[in-house]
Amino acid sequence: MTGVQTCALPILRKRLPPDRADVDTGIGDDAAVLKVSPGARIVVTTDALSDGIDFHLPPAGSASSTSSESTNRSTNRSGRQLGSATLREAGYKALAVNLSDLAAMAARPVAAFVSLVLPFTGALQAAQELIEGLLPLAEEHAITIAGGDTNTWSDRLVISITAIGETQPIRCDGGSLQHGVWRRSGAQVGDVILATGEYGGSLLGRHLHPIPRVREATRLATRYRIHAAVDVSDGLTLDLSHLAESSQCGVLLDLAAIPIAPAAEEMARQAGDSRSPLEHALGDGEDFELLMVVPATEVPQILADAELGVRITPIGHCIPQAGLWIDAGDNQLRPLPPRGYRHG
Amino acid sequence: MTGVQTCALPILRKRLPPDRADVDTGIGDDAAVLKVSPGARIVVTTDALSDGIDFHLPPAGSASSTSSESTNRSTNRSGRQLGSATLREAGYKALAVNLSDLAAMAARPVAAFVSLVLPFTGALQAAQELIEGLLPLAEEHAITIAGGDTNTWSDRLVISITAIGETQPIRCDGGSLQHGVWRRSGAQVGDVILATGEYGGSLLGRHLHPIPRVREATRLATRYRIHAAVDVSDGLTLDLSHLAESSQCGVLLDLAAIPIAPAAEEMARQAGDSRSPLEHALGDGEDFELLMVVPATEVPQILADAELGVRITPIGHCIPQAGLWIDAGDNQLRPLPPRGYRHG
Repeated sequence: MTGVQTCALPILRKRLPPDRADVDTGIGDDAAVLKVSPGARIVVTTDALSDGIDFHLPPAGSASSTSSESTNRSTNRSGRQLGSATLREAGYKALAVNLSDLAAMAARPVAAFVSLVLPFTGALQAAQELIEGLLPLAEEHAITIAGGDTNTWSDRLVISITAIGETQPIRCDGGSLQHGVWRRSGAQVGDVILATGEYGGSLLGRHLHPIPRVREATRLATRYRIHAAVDVSDGLTLDLSHLAESSQCGVLLDLAAIPIAPAAEEMARQAGDSRSPLEHALGDGEDFELLMVVPATEVPQILADAELGVRITPIGHCIPQAGLWIDAGDNQLRPLPPRGYRHG
Repeated sequence: MTGVQTCALPILRKRLPPDRADVDTGIGDDAAVLKVSPGARIVVTTDALSDGIDFHLPPAGSASSTSSESTNRSTNRSGRQLGSATLREAGYKALAVNLSDLAAMAARPVAAFVSLVLPFTGALQAAQELIEGLLPLAEEHAITIAGGDTNTWSDRLVISITAIGETQPIRCDGGSLQHGVWRRSGAQVGDVILATGEYGGSLLGRHLHPIPRVREATRLATRYRIHAAVDVSDGLTLDLSHLAESSQCGVLLDLAAIPIAPAAEEMARQAGDSRSPLEHALGDGEDFELLMVVPATEVPQILADAELGVRITPIGHCIPQAGLWIDAGDNQLRPLPPRGYRHG
């Protein structure tokens, strides 16, 4: 059964907005039932986030576990120091990273399923705080929290979310609108790489408050032909290299064009930091921005579109040679080793 | 992204059967895309299983962690002694309990998404073993492992699976076949409770090898009118009480009819055990059998149906009084407190 029934169910029932017309929640039953729009396919992604890896919670019961202060510092998956997170931030991030995956497919989010494995101490309060953290984001995107599972144990907190979306009509190469998704495999030689937002230094705090580019993706998908896309979770260059590999092409990056976040500059200034702001932007990851590959002819219109609501920057283009490259001058290309977080 | 790319992806790619025609896996992309049959809705359930709670793995690196011997004993969620599990058994169980939820809705399984949080030591081998454990079950039910996420940490193993099914045509009260699900809320006064299989003592080993009643549910759903159903994970009486509550009725149980598993008898014989075999059957849980609520007129045909492939036993019927009851003689009903595992 979806084990929310006992521990977290009352919390969810009390806090959740009414079901969408197309979602019967599984809370209180064995599973949820979702209606799919005619012509649509469903799009599914899952991400498990763990305390000490994707965020660092203060010890259970400490005053700061539910406050918004982020003063404690500890080490995360990259080995960097980072501020501690509140449970609400952890809940928000867990849903946001899943929505970012749906955005990278140009899918419309419909529902999310939340599995919690909670430390015994303060489990009920932790469940409440996690839910409170993710609910505003769910409401913003009209997503139903349609089910889940709650367990307790003596180890640290894990929150695993599966987000379900559906395809929407997107602009195809012929110009018509048809149900579909953006894949990583559609890039073509000559296409331009467009990046939303800014990159680097997310560990200083932005990694806890990513803005999934759901609305932006929908606007772009309906207006413009996008050949391929990926969201940047592991690192700009690493995720871009995966896209290039899937598309059987390479990418010539324009390093001078990379939009560097102020946090990347700040991080590079910290004592003991040996990387430049650009290096942070290229490899830090957890930016949860979109990299989109578009025909060069689409670029002027996209850059002139004031309604997209996000900064968009051309950062390179696709070339026949596999891998990532930079211009070394004199018509020479130099390989750029992709950097980022490698799972496992 | 669905983080299978680096750690577990090569394992999955190598071992997985080709995609079904209706599933494009998200492995290697940000999400999976699934086609839904015309007229169908999708049915989604999620369950997270943890080492030490839902199974007990031997310490990483020990010889028995991949063998089929179950000799070590430790304590699980009920506080009972139980044999240790192999990683393959853990993988099997994680998928099986999710399929059991789909069976309880009479849904046809389509795909599963597997999130792993693995101890650093032996993470790759653990991922391989978990996958090997669940693949035969996935293949048996023609399910695609369509995506997932792999992480490592210093705590114990968590495997969180989300299973996605779709509705199929089921027999309705009018006799016609229409897309739908079995809910917990459809029981009516006078309906008979039918139980598949046997109950009790699953911790002696059966809890690691549950048989999700997917095929049985499909056969029953297409042939007979079933008003409500639930699978028994937390305990026969506890899960039945949830169903009764959802249906706003009560249940008069026939204790003499409860099908008691041999393991319940064995457990009751163990030194220090203070429960009868019947008490084990009523409250142990993790049987992953189905309780179905059917109109009394359907019962003879169901019991005479030799093609269902599972033992089916009438164990009580629905009455107007809320709660679970037993016959105390002299036309008196005595309340039966539900027993089982309460989450959180």
